Amino acid sequence: MTKKKPLILVTNDDGITAPGIRTLIEVMKELGDVVVVAPDSPQSGMGHAITISDTLFCEQVTIKENYKHKEYSCSGTPADCVKIATQEILHRKPDLCVSGINHGSNSSINVIYSGTMSAAVEAGVEGIPAIGFSLLDYSLNADFEPARKYVKAITRNVIKNGLPKGVVLNVNIPKLPASEIKGMKVCRQANAQWEEEFDKRTNPQGREYYWLTGKFVNKDKGEDTDEWALGKGYVSVVPVQFDLTAHHFLDDLNNWELND
Amino acid sequence: MTKKKPLILVTNDDGITAPGIRTLIEVMKELGDVVVVAPDSPQSGMGHAITISDTLFCEQVTIKENYKHKEYSCSGTPADCVKIATQEILHRKPDLCVSGINHGSNSSINVIYSGTMSAAVEAGVEGIPAIGFSLLDYSLNADFEPARKYVKAITRNVIKNGLPKGVVLNVNIPKLPASEIKGMKVCRQANAQWEEEFDKRTNPQGREYYWLTGKFVNKDKGEDTDEWALGKGYVSVVPVQFDLTAHHFLDDLNNWELND
Repeated sequence: MTKKKPLILVTNDDGITAPGIRTLIEVMKELGDVVVVAPDSPQSGMGHAITISDTLFCEQVTIKENYKHKEYSCSGTPADCVKIATQEILHRKPDLCVSGINHGSNSSINVIYSGTMSAAVEAGVEGIPAIGFSLLDYSLNADFEPARKYVKAITRNVIKNGLPKGVVLNVNIPKLPASEIKGMKVCRQANAQWEEEFDKRTNPQGREYYWLTGKFVNKDKGEDTDEWALGKGYVSVVPVQFDLTAHHFLDDLNNWELND
Repeated sequence: MTKKKPLILVTNDDGITAPGIRTLIEVMKELGDVVVVAPDSPQSGMGHAITISDTLFCEQVTIKENYKHKEYSCSGTPADCVKIATQEILHRKPDLCVSGINHGSNSSINVIYSGTMSAAVEAGVEGIPAIGFSLLDYSLNADFEPARKYVKAITRNVIKNGLPKGVVLNVNIPKLPASEIKGMKVCRQANAQWEEEFDKRTNPQGREYYWLTGKFVNKDKGEDTDEWALGKGYVSVVPVQFDLTAHHFLDDLNNWELND
């Protein structure tokens, strides 16, 4: 008797035609039955946006003729894709949801801006084990080959062990040749941030506008962080929760004079 | 000698002309020097989106002639507003950032979809004490008067006590007459979620589309949650963190066979 294959929902935030999701689909097909529901256009930096003031289109598409699984292109955000996949396409919860492989890092504080991770978190909220994968290479021609081994290993572990309620995984892969990646490290989110810089310009009509730019600054010296691991050539694996309560501050806050 | 007034940045996600931000501005003017940088249009459900693939406009506007403080209207998201305020308008960190008062709840899991809270979190990431305020009334004609007292009290407490690094406050106010609000309660985020329903329609050209709808389901029976407090007529105050690491799962995850 063969064990039933898991049903794996694949999504991302770079759009359904991005090279990163193509690699992810190929790896997932080795592990289960795949259905793809992904944005029709890039959604990077969308955070946990959902579409509530606009209509959503979601239609079956064929990206590669030799692919036997079904793929759907959705006009919404990554979080929308997970919602519509569960409710309108699969009519059940998939056994696993994977998002990515993102073109660019989602380590450290980037997790809160990340469309890739918002899809994983949305799945987690719905009780679906979920993993977001990102490669530290923004290039459209990024080499996703070295990532395959780690994507497969961690997904196998999640299929085997499950994940606790309220936890999803944030996996980042360094931009290195396969021979130079040292393995995987379980980490915490580094306490780093972006120092914004705005590039101020004037448009042809004389109106000022800005481009958001910035540099990433990590002052967290801990050797247990994702930034540390990535810098040393490891794949970082951070368990991520969406109970945002700062439980450690509840006691102090209860001592405030709020009702005086 | 008079104590220097705090510089308070006011923003929101319903847009700079929304009634909720007008109430918030009035209360803040009693507590400090106010600068407003808010989206030029509604940004509800934007989560922690930032604008990285498009240009940003940000210009001084006059919403009310009798207002002496400065107000800026920004084409971006709530998180963009905080970034541009700090970098390009104030050229310093404000002493406090307040966001809202949102037209509608941001309790429980709504915190992850919330543009209101994303502005507060963005400020927190930048090291600025921050509070998001929401009223449980989606109506444009919502009565914000009963909220004033609580908004002022909690803001005074934050000005006096500060907030720990990495923590911002999520304050939700029940839709009740002033006489029926019982006071404030420090809470944790309820473990609730949305059960999505998609309203499927066909457009005049025969193409199917969807509206995202759903109902909010709270199975968390704890009497220490924001949902419980709001249901009992209290203002809920949840301390929110943006270190999303599920620290409680690190040990177990380290026992997985990731590198075998």
